[in-house]
Parts: sequence; C-alpha cells; structure tokens
Amino acid sequence: MLWRDLRVLQIYGANTNVGKSIVSTLLCKAFKRKSPTSGVLYLKPISTGPVEDADTRHISRFAPGVKSENLYQFQEPVSPHLAARSAQNSSYGCRDNSDIGDVSIVEKVKSWIERSARDGFRYTVLETAGGSLSPAPSGTLQADLYRPLRLPVCLVGDHRLGGIASTISAFESLHIRGYDVDSVILFHDKVYGNHEFLQDHFRSHGIRTFALPQPPARQKEAQDDEDLMNEYYDDVSKSTSITEMVDFVDHKHYFRISNLSSMPALAESIIWHPFRQHGISQNLLTIDSAYGDFFQGVNPKSVSSLDDSAPHQKSGIAPIRQGPDEPILEPLFDGSASWWTQGLGHGNPDLALTAAHAAGRYGHVMFASAAHAPALELSSKLLSMLANPRLSRVFFSDNGSTGIEVALKMALRAASKRYGWSRDDEPIGVLGFKGSYHGDCIATMNCSEPSTYNEAVNWYQPWGWWFDPPSLKMRNGVWELQVPQEMGTRTTFQFQSLEHIFDYDTRTHLGHSEIYEQFIMSTLRRLIVDEGRKFGALICEPILMGAGGMIFVDPLFQRTLVKVIRGNPALFAGVSGSTQSASTSMEKSFDWSGLPIIADEVFTGIYRLGRASSSSFLSKLQNTQLVDTDIAPDISVHAKLLTGGLLPLAITTAGESIFNAFLSDKKQDALLHGHSYTAHAVGCSVGAKSLAMLRELEKNGAWQGYQNGWRASAANNPSESEKGVQFWSFWDQVSVKRLSESNKVDGVFALGSVLAIYLKTEDGHSGYTSNAAADLQSTLLGVSDGGFVVHSRVLGNVLYLMASMTSNQESLAAIEKILIRALR
Amino acid sequence: MLWRDLRVLQIYGANTNVGKSIVSTLLCKAFKRKSPTSGVLYLKPISTGPVEDADTRHISRFAPGVKSENLYQFQEPVSPHLAARSAQNSSYGCRDNSDIGDVSIVEKVKSWIERSARDGFRYTVLETAGGSLSPAPSGTLQADLYRPLRLPVCLVGDHRLGGIASTISAFESLHIRGYDVDSVILFHDKVYGNHEFLQDHFRSHGIRTFALPQPPARQKEAQDDEDLMNEYYDDVSKSTSITEMVDFVDHKHYFRISNLSSMPALAESIIWHPFRQHGISQNLLTIDSAYGDFFQGVNPKSVSSLDDSAPHQKSGIAPIRQGPDEPILEPLFDGSASWWTQGLGHGNPDLALTAAHAAGRYGHVMFASAAHAPALELSSKLLSMLANPRLSRVFFSDNGSTGIEVALKMALRAASKRYGWSRDDEPIGVLGFKGSYHGDCIATMNCSEPSTYNEAVNWYQPWGWWFDPPSLKMRNGVWELQVPQEMGTRTTFQFQSLEHIFDYDTRTHLGHSEIYEQFIMSTLRRLIVDEGRKFGALICEPILMGAGGMIFVDPLFQRTLVKVIRGNPALFAGVSGSTQSASTSMEKSFDWSGLPIIADEVFTGIYRLGRASSSSFLSKLQNTQLVDTDIAPDISVHAKLLTGGLLPLAITTAGESIFNAFLSDKKQDALLHGHSYTAHAVGCSVGAKSLAMLRELEKNGAWQGYQNGWRASAANNPSESEKGVQFWSFWDQVSVKRLSESNKVDGVFALGSVLAIYLKTEDGHSGYTSNAAADLQSTLLGVSDGGFVVHSRVLGNVLYLMASMTSNQESLAAIEKILIRALR
Repeated sequence: MLWRDLRVLQIYGANTNVGKSIVSTLLCKAFKRKSPTSGVLYLKPISTGPVEDADTRHISRFAPGVKSENLYQFQEPVSPHLAARSAQNSSYGCRDNSDIGDVSIVEKVKSWIERSARDGFRYTVLETAGGSLSPAPSGTLQADLYRPLRLPVCLVGDHRLGGIASTISAFESLHIRGYDVDSVILFHDKVYGNHEFLQDHFRSHGIRTFALPQPPARQKEAQDDEDLMNEYYDDVSKSTSITEMVDFVDHKHYFRISNLSSMPALAESIIWHPFRQHGISQNLLTIDSAYGDFFQGVNPKSVSSLDDSAPHQKSGIAPIRQGPDEPILEPLFDGSASWWTQGLGHGNPDLALTAAHAAGRYGHVMFASAAHAPALELSSKLLSMLANPRLSRVFFSDNGSTGIEVALKMALRAASKRYGWSRDDEPIGVLGFKGSYHGDCIATMNCSEPSTYNEAVNWYQPWGWWFDPPSLKMRNGVWELQVPQEMGTRTTFQFQSLEHIFDYDTRTHLGHSEIYEQFIMSTLRRLIVDEGRKFGALICEPILMGAGGMIFVDPLFQRTLVKVIRGNPALFAGVSGSTQSASTSMEKSFDWSGLPIIADEVFTGIYRLGRASSSSFLSKLQNTQLVDTDIAPDISVHAKLLTGGLLPLAITTAGESIFNAFLSDKKQDALLHGHSYTAHAVGCSVGAKSLAMLRELEKNGAWQGYQNGWRASAANNPSESEKGVQFWSFWDQVSVKRLSESNKVDGVFALGSVLAIYLKTEDGHSGYTSNAAADLQSTLLGVSDGGFVVHSRVLGNVLYLMASMTSNQESLAAIEKILIRALR
Repeated sequence: MLWRDLRVLQIYGANTNVGKSIVSTLLCKAFKRKSPTSGVLYLKPISTGPVEDADTRHISRFAPGVKSENLYQFQEPVSPHLAARSAQNSSYGCRDNSDIGDVSIVEKVKSWIERSARDGFRYTVLETAGGSLSPAPSGTLQADLYRPLRLPVCLVGDHRLGGIASTISAFESLHIRGYDVDSVILFHDKVYGNHEFLQDHFRSHGIRTFALPQPPARQKEAQDDEDLMNEYYDDVSKSTSITEMVDFVDHKHYFRISNLSSMPALAESIIWHPFRQHGISQNLLTIDSAYGDFFQGVNPKSVSSLDDSAPHQKSGIAPIRQGPDEPILEPLFDGSASWWTQGLGHGNPDLALTAAHAAGRYGHVMFASAAHAPALELSSKLLSMLANPRLSRVFFSDNGSTGIEVALKMALRAASKRYGWSRDDEPIGVLGFKGSYHGDCIATMNCSEPSTYNEAVNWYQPWGWWFDPPSLKMRNGVWELQVPQEMGTRTTFQFQSLEHIFDYDTRTHLGHSEIYEQFIMSTLRRLIVDEGRKFGALICEPILMGAGGMIFVDPLFQRTLVKVIRGNPALFAGVSGSTQSASTSMEKSFDWSGLPIIADEVFTGIYRLGRASSSSFLSKLQNTQLVDTDIAPDISVHAKLLTGGLLPLAITTAGESIFNAFLSDKKQDALLHGHSYTAHAVGCSVGAKSLAMLRELEKNGAWQGYQNGWRASAANNPSESEKGVQFWSFWDQVSVKRLSESNKVDGVFALGSVLAIYLKTEDGHSGYTSNAAADLQSTLLGVSDGGFVVHSRVLGNVLYLMASMTSNQESLAAIEKILIRALR
C-alpha cells in the first residue's frame, strides 16, 4: 500500500462526531487544489445513517472534482456491527451488501486504492466510521480490521470537554496496533484548549498537531446552511493549517519512501548480519512492517540501484524508477516463520497489549530470590503442557542456546556427582547425533560433531561422540528410511504412512528395535569400555534436526537409544566411576538413569510439529500427551515459540533428581547461571498468554481443516484412526505427495507446520555447493500468484517452509500450487 | 496500598460525563449496606465545577453514612490543568490549594487511604476526574499521576454512540500503564447495545462487565429531581448488578491477597532460581509490581508463615495475621537496579508504549539478510554515542554473555588469521584480569580465572591468563591505591580525589606508568616467549569489575596494558606466528594491533558510571567523549542498560579490520552466530528510545544536582574544574566520605550510579564467609525511614547500591542517611 505518486491517508476519529467528515472534506479540497490535473479519491468503506446525509454526497457537494466512493451503507445510525445485523437492502453508494466479512472489506478497499494508483491519482483519503476502535460490521474493531493495510493515519482529535483524554487514548490504541499516526488535527476551542495541550503531548511522539476553526453552527434553512458551509470550506481549505498539513502529508510520504530505499545501504555500512558471509553480495530484504504471516517488504523491482539513487536522495526526491502502478511494498509470506519463531502471527494485538501491560506493571524486575506472577504463571503452564512427570523445575534464560548451556551444566553436574568424577578426570563429553545443532554459544557448538562449518573456526573443540542416525524422507509418495551401512542390515525400508513409522510395536515385531539396540550397545561398549571415554548427557532434538538440514531422524532409533542408556546405568559409570551410587538412585521412580537425557525442543517443541511437546513422538502410547515416562526426557529446553514469536526467552526444565545434585550448604555448589533479564516480566507475560492461546487453538479444533486432509493416511491403519489424527501437517497431504514425485526433488518431509523439500543436487555438486535450493528460493520470490510472494530460507540443498499456528488454508494452498508448478 | 480488610477501588471514566459519580454513589451505598458498622470512604482528589455540584455533596446527600472528602476543588468546569492555572481561592472540601504538584496529590491520597485502613474502614472509593487520561493540575495525565498507587480499577464505560471505541481505548490506556482493570460498568442502552459488545470483548481479558439502568432524566424542580434520584439510587444499589459487583470487589480483593501469599510456596516448588543455592533456605521477595525505582513487594511482616497459611487457603480466606493497619505491600527501593539493568525506572510509560508499537508493527521479524528501521536506528544511535572511530559494525545478540561470546569469536578469528595460527596449534587463550566476570555462558566463564566458584564445576576449563590488577578504594575520605607486591614497588598510594586518579599526565611524571609498563612487558615476555603461550584477545571491564566484587581497577594500569599490547605487535605473533602480516596491517589507521582489545561494557557502559562509554575513562583527554583512539577498544560489548532496563538485548560492536577477517567467498568463513530473535524489533525500538532518553537527560543537565555535589572535588584541581564535573556520582560526596570513615567499613567506591561498600570482615572470616554485608543487607530491609525499605544485593563482603538515571535526590539522600546510621 505504498506508491511513488499516490499518497494515501486514513482518517481515524478520537470519537464519533469529532468532525472526521469535515476534516476529510477540507483535505480533499486542498489536495485537489494542489494537484488539479490528477485525481483525488475519497473512500468511505462503511457508512451508517440516512443516505441523504452520506459523506460521499457531502464530498460531491463541497469538494467538486473529487471522486467519492462508499462501499457499504447502512440506514440505521448505529454502530456498523448492529446496523449490518438488521440491514436488508443496500443503498446509495453501495456495490454489494451481502458480503460484509472483514476480508472482503479489506480486499475491496485495497483494490480501490490500487486502482487509484494505477489511474495516476495523487491522493486518496480513506475515512473510517465512528471512533478508532468502533466495530466493523463483523464486530472486529476497526483499527484491527484495517491493520493489514497499515495506511498512514491522520487522527481527528476531540476538541470538546474530555477530548484530551479521548484523543490520547485513541492515539495509543492505534499506536500499539503498529500504525504510524503522523498527524493529529482538531477544531480549536478557546475554553478547553485541547489543541495546545495535545500539541505539546504529541510533539514528544514526533507527531504534528494542527488546529482548525470550528465549522459554523447549523442553520434552519438548508440553503443557508449550505452557503455557510461552502464559505467555511473555501476559507479553511486555504488556511495555513490545511496547506501546512497538505505539505506535511507530501513530506511524510517522500520521507518514508526515501527512508525505506536508503535502508539497505545503511545496513550494508554498519550491520554485521548473523550467519552472513559479507564477502558474497546479497540482496537485503527491507521490512516496513509485518502482519499475520506476511512481511510488508520493499519490492526490489520498485527501487533503483543505490548508485542511481544517490543524486535523487540529495534533491529530496525518492529514488524510484518504476512506472506509476508498481507498488513499493509487497506482501511476502514469512516462509521461515522468522527463523522458526512465529506461532501467532506478526503484529498480534493481544500479544502487543500483553507485552505493554507487563512493561507498564513491572518493567523488568529482578528474579534472583524473587517471585512474580508472570514467571510463575508461565512456569506452571509450561510444566502442565509438557505433561512429563519427570520435569518439575523451571530455569529461565534468554534463548535456546543459553537454555542448552544450562541443560549441559545440569546434566554434567548430575552425572559427575553420581559417578564420582572430579574435574581432574579427563573431560566429560556428550552423546548426540550427527547433523545436530543446539545453538550458537561456543560450548553448545562444541556439542555438535565436526563439520565444514565448525572445523573452520578457531575456538571449536568437539566435545563428545555423535551417532549417525537412520533418517527418513518421503519419496514418490512413500516414506523411505535410510539406515547407515555400519548397522549391518538393509539400508532402506519403506513405510506407507507416518502412522507406520511411529507404530513401535509392529516395528519391534519386525526386528527394527533389535538391530538398533545391538548397534547402540556395541558402539557404547567400544567408546566407554574399550576407549575409556566418559559421557555426561545424551542431547537429542526429538525426531527433527533443524539447522543440520531438516533431518527426520527415525524416532525408533532415538527411542531405542534412550531405552538402552536408561537400561544400562553401570556402563556409564566407567572404569573409575562408582557404580554403587548409580544402582541406589534407581530406586526413585523418576530418577534419571544411565545418563541425563536432554531434549532440545527449542525448534521442535510448542506446536511447531503440531504437538505441545515433540518428545511425545517418541512415546509408544501414540498420544499427544506425553505419558510414556520410560522414554520422557530428564531435562528439556524450550524457546522460540515460547513467546508465540515475539520476544527472546528460554526455559530449561528438569526433574528433582537433577535439581538435587546441586543442593548443599555451599553457595558455590549452586547452578552458576543467571542472566540479568532472567524471567523478564514482559517475556513471561507474553509467554503465558501465547501458551494459553496455542492451547486454545488446539482444544477448539482450529486445525481440524488441516487434520482432515491427513485422515486418509490414518485410515490406512484403522486402529489408529479411531484415536484421531495424530500425525498431520499444516501442509496438505496430497500436495506433499505430489511434491515428492517431482523429478527435481530427492524427498520431502511434512509434519506440523514444517515442510522441507530436499532438492536433487546438480551433477558434480554436493549439498553445500548445490544451487538447486537457492534457485527455487529465487523462483518463489518472483511469483505472486496468491497476491503475495514467498520468502523462504534454505539449508544447503534443502528449502523449507514453516506455517504459523494461525496460518489460513488459502495462503498455504496457494503456496503449495506455486511450489508444485515450480518443481514440475 | 493493600490491606487485609480495606478494599480500595479507583473509578476511572471512559470519557467525561459517562456517569462516574452515579456509579460511585451506587457503590458507596452498596458498600455501606454490606458493612454497616465499618466505615466507607469516598475520596475525590480533584474536582472542577461549581461547589454546589461537588461530588462530595452528592455523596452526602444520597449515600448517608459514607465519609466523603474532596482534596482540591476548582470553580471552573474545565480540565484541572486549566482550572488550576487560574484558580485563586479554595472552595468547599479543599484543604489547601497552594500546592498542587503531582507528588503532593499522590501523597495526600495515600495518607487518606492509609488513614482509612488504620481506622478500620472496609471500603474506599476513589473517583477520578474526567476521562482516564485527563490531565491533572500539573498537566500529568491522570492515569500516570496515580500509577505509583496502582489501585484496582473499575472503569465506567460509555453507553452512548461511539462508546464502544472510547471504552476500549480507555481500557487500553490503563492496561498499558500496568493497572489491573478488574471491572467495567456502564449504563444499559437498548439502541446502541454497547454493554453486550463490551461484555464479550472484556471477557477475553478476564474482566467482568456490569450494566446498570440509566438514571432518570433531570427534572425542572430540584426537589423532584432529588426524589427521583433517591428512588433510583435505592433501587439500583440493591440490584443484582450492584450486589454482584460488590461481591466481585470482595472476591478480587481476597483472590489477589491469597495469590500474593501463595507465590513464595509455588516458586519454591517449581522454580530453579538463578545463582541460588536452594539448599540454603531464604526468604523470597514477592513482587506485585514496580514503578520508578521502587518494587511493590509483599511485606514479610504481613504474611504468616506458609505452614500457618495452608488451612486458610483452603477455606478461601487469605493467610494474613497482621493487625488491620499493617499494609500487605511495601515499597522497596530497587537497590541493585534489578541486577544492574534499570536506567529509566520500572513501568516507564514511554518505554511500554514504544514496546507495544513495535510489537504491533512488526512482532518479531527475521534479521538474517534483512533490515528494519528499529535495528538501524539503534545501531546508528549506539555508534554515535560511543564516539569511538575504531567501531563501525554492529552485531546483535541476546545478552551480555552471548555478546562476549560473539566478541571472542571475532577476536580469535582476527588474531588467528593475522598470525597464521591454525586449529591444530595449541589452544589460543585470552588475557584478562583477576576478579573479572564476563557472563554465564560456559566459554565466557572459561575467560575468567579459576576461583572458588568455577573450580567447583565440571565443565570449567580456564582459557587464558589473568593479571592481578592494582585497585582502589576510598578509605577515611581518601582514595587508596593497592598495588600487588609482585610489581616491586610501594604497595599503597593515596589520592585526594577521583580527578587525581585519572590525571594520567601527572601520574606518568610520577613514574606510575613506567612501573606498570615494565611489569606488563616482563609478564608477557615470560608467558609468550618463555612459556610459548598464545593469546588472541585482551578482555577488559573498563575501570570497574562488577560481579567479581565491584573492584575499582586502577585505570592507569588498564590504559598502560592496552598501550603495551598495541605497541608490541611482534610479541604476540609468537614463535610460530608470521610477524610480517602484523607489521603491514599497522598501516591502516584504526586497524587493531597486538591483540584485539575487547571492552566488556555490559555492566559499566551506557551511563551506569555516568558516561555513555566507560572506555572513555581510560582516555587521557579527560572528556566524556571518547576520542583517545590510541586507547579505544577494537570491540565493545553492550547490554543491560541498552534497553533502559526493559528487555534482553545485546550488541557487540567492532571495527572494519575485525570485520574484514571474516570476508571470503566461502559461507563457512562467516561469523557463525545468530540467535532466532537477533535484533528483535521490540528490543531495538525500546533500545533506540532508551538511548535517546538517556542522551536527553545528559544534555538537559538532569544530573546537575548530583554533579554539583562533586564540584568541590574537581575544585582541588582547578584546571579540571573548568571543563565541568567529569567524575561524579548520584551518591553524595559528603555521604560517601562519611561512609568511608565508619570503622565497620574497609572502603567505599562511588562513581555514576554505583555505590559499593566494602565491609570489614569479622575475625576469622574471609570475604566469602563473612556475614557483614548480609547483616547490613538485612538491616536495610528493616528500616523504612524514607517511607520505603531498601532492597540490595551483596557480593561476598561487598554491599552495593545502584541508582537509575532518573532517581530522585530525596530518595538517595534518605538511603545515605540510613546507611550512615546503620554503619555508625
């Protein structure tokens, strides 16, 4: 909703009857005077009250030459949500009264504005109805309804008694919804002096305030009234206030465009981007705002190259070289869920309000030896959601990586204490999986196996041993399991459905578990008994290793590994360890055994894969509730979706047997960790709200539309289908199968919100040097069939997409179509 | 503002004229009916309009038996900020019209409520004037004025056309200021149906909505009017709505108390606290909210022990055993600035609004290969504030510890590349200081020297070499420098003022620099040449080592160390290193030399010590601007105050010569770091706002009152005093000196917002086992001379206090008095 030539202004009111229509008329008149040869559009999407009073008629009468449109008109002079309920007949200015849902209103407004841009209009004034938060016909608050467009706002203030309060409150409601309120305009009133007060107040927010003379009092005779109003409009539309306001609208418009177009150059000169090789040139995405699943990003086609723009910038003219109908901003589907964080959509007003309340109530308050409601609420909610009786303690940190560091400190202490290892013994490592990634802190990176990446750096010191796990992909519609040769069995197995992969009983009968068990035992014996190595933890991303390349690990292998470790505690005590303490500790029911098992659910947990806990996928009782305590982790780490995608926050949960390993009467035996913003109230409040909202979505069956598409798969296994759909994705099963049949595709994965496409590499290229995924990524950025383009991220030769938990089916279906076409 | 027996309710209005007084009257009547034998107080702090219409008169007339009070009354029926301007004479109900500042209003209201608690009143109704955000006499918005009291709110909604919007907006303005809006009450209106809509809307926020019949129309005859109103009040005050509302007020009151009193037990059962030895029992502070420098915490004297409370809790009665006049909440000065984070006060409405806008506009948007305005704005602001031409690149992470990890990755790569070290060489360490602490991540903890704490853990691997630095304390009014014996010189030196310590020219003439230089050179030669060790960075907390025990390091020593390292690049190349590359690189002006110098300004930077950058203290040009580029760091790390104390966010800045060490055409040579929430928009927006606000405070001379108190010291050195006060503290110089003279005190430190008191240890105790600081800490929690108690943190035998940049002088003076008395 941004073009070089067209300035759009949305008029909101501090209340009803504050003069929105008069201000709109004045502005339309002044805009028309400023650009007499180009069009000016006045748009009133929703209007209530008698047709003869309609604002479009007012505009026609007093601002001749301005095109005016009314999309929906209701006779009753009440709030639109009531008027719509009883409305039967459409009226003057309305195109259609039958479809008054939010989407259709916004789409209509959008298409009118787009049309005015295409037709070379210079100004469009969009007048809202009632106050800023008055309900739309659907009952959605107006400021929420129009938020996807995020048009620059002029707020008409209230000049009456009490108007200071209502004007500032209306501004705050718009501001917290992410609008740019650039200007406030209100009638001058000598007695109440609201204008003077508001001018000072809004100056501190960088907002200009304009005062206008009050309109004349209503006359008895219609003609007198019209004459007086005509005089008023003529005079005031030429007044300093209005002409300054018109110039200000132009100025803000150009400033915004120039700002957006200069951002990539500024970023290139001062920003050191995460994980970016600055030696390779790259187009930066400039993000103006975001809403729901979509970024509003600068359309690269609309902006000229930076060199071209330099002279323009100096002259104050925005460096744009597109035709008049090329929009500067375009919606991009946030296909990486903003690095795997999004769950409840960008700009979610509930989360913004929750964050603001916590900021207003607490700011940040210290958590050392303190308690506050948001931290306790989030802790209780998370523990109950995980439904793992092994977990009872909550430790806060700031991100997944620090959460893992905390888990490591916990596990290594617990193991060292039980097995009687001291610091003078040889270093204790971790057991993990090849292809794992647990975060960016140095010690967490040391917990992944040597690779092209970490081998290159000067501080990497591998710190453990990593199993090469069997992994799965869907190929030509069938799930294919790849087993490493070293396991001494067939190297591929096939499964007809996800249900079959997770059917542990059947697979045990088929002998899969035994193969794994033998391999794991012989490996551990070699490492510990033969080589004398010491391990202090198993660290495991349940079923999906994200950063390592979206590797779908055979859950039976992870399950078996946990069982073997838990079942052989004596093995881990090693030669020097004391096995005695190990055996006594087994008496307690949820005590850890063998090694503390750390589940890194940072990426996979909290509904990313459709379930509250991704560890539940390892449970034999194929149930979304985690009750299979034999397999449940002793420590689990949560971040990313923990705040619904708004703020950094991490939680490491652990059981009492781990907690107790730190108890003593010496301060130095405590768990030495605690960032300054530990359990910050804003993050905890947003976290508690997010978990509640996500649980609500699950309970209310918000995902049933998606789940139904995977019912056919469950039906293959009748005994399972009765239990409901346990394995499903936001991505349609039929589309996923079709993608897996493309001859450009090596395989696909879909579960919960994640879709991964493993592309075949070109001849002579390995995964890392292949351009196949990057090419597909570029294609997605160029196609806008669904009214948007798709912004995605790649990992080597894997392109992945991630929905949020509130994505709508139409958007995802559109993306699937684009993908299928691109890979044909 | 919370007692067991007294329920206080603050009535805010969605607008003026929505019926606040009628609702208040109804509630007062109903409260009186519910507790006929106890008092009910109606309080109207500020009233405008003719005395004969005053709300207190209305209450006397229609709610007999209710005590009513009006604190300030203005004749003119306009907003109080205008009425106050012209008011000359006080009227009925007013005690005093001369002093209408914010503080005096709040203090008066507070004392009236306290009195009603003491007198055994059951209910107090506080009616505000106009809408929620109407200005107080001073111009402060009413909701901000009363925020320190944070009374439970009943919002009177607007039943008229447009009232849905104004009621929700008014709620949002109160909500983002941290109020608990428990209930909304409004007149029923059949046509507009606002009540039905609002009921649904507020239910989702957990708020109860009540509807009341509209009052009768005004009658011509005063007596008729009074009769009708009497009838209305009698009927409605017995209606279901009002009786339910009264029960609801009681319920919310008990629920809040019971919630507060159960929090410590809940925390003990599920929380694993940071840096806490759970094996040692401890009283947890329950924080209800915070504002400015103060927590509102549960008064431990008011709550019975948990064992006692258990049966009460079951019966739904709050477990309180105090007399009626013991408040449940007490204000505690946040003496650790919430773990060193606070700068702009808790619950700062500007920061809350800024956070909400960013949440509404962006949520979190991915920063990989992307740019958005808040990140760029914060980056530019920080770089310009640091004024260090060596720094040009900004890398984002989540906290000080990860910021240091990033700095390490940067420095080690730069050094390894220049000196041609490969990963196969022996590990590269860091140079640092004994007593340092750089954060909780495992690798950052490895960057501090072995100590009681990290020696105890299983993952600690010391990673460098640490100088034992000369350090300073004020003793008996004089600054005393302690030099380690190994430096082969006198072990103590004295300075009359801070100016003398930082007067590097004079100290160089006196030979101090030479002593340090020789010691540093001989140490480095021994380590590198004799022992063949390799170092990749110097990591340095400028002048004050925080977590290590608030150690004031001689700045001349740090300065000299930087100079020696920069001046001897060949030394660091080591035996295997290539010196050739080292020499050529020196050609570039701001290229690093010797070792990359990392300034850990996480704690000391961003005005914690009164200056934008704490590295500036090492500058010879004694200027708050950092222009002494010979000494300026190559990398600096910032967190804590970066967001003014609201949210986790960290920045590591570096120069181009460091940045260039990562450039290549290979992705794996990039800096491998990037948390999911990198440069999250909310944190960056709040950061940019905070830096702007802090700079504003500095420029506007907001700290002059404090600085003047340290002018006497500067005057000792006349040439310096002309330049303004460069070395000053928020803590009064005279008080600091007096504290240093106490015979219980070993020494003190004060600079900027930090005051540290090093206590003498008892006989036979070392610093770690001494109880001296903990005893003083307890004393501070027990004394409430300034109307509050002081919550502080200790480090071994050091008790420290930290102001925010917006602390007021009266509070700090009160604390100084308490300290001086406690240490007499």
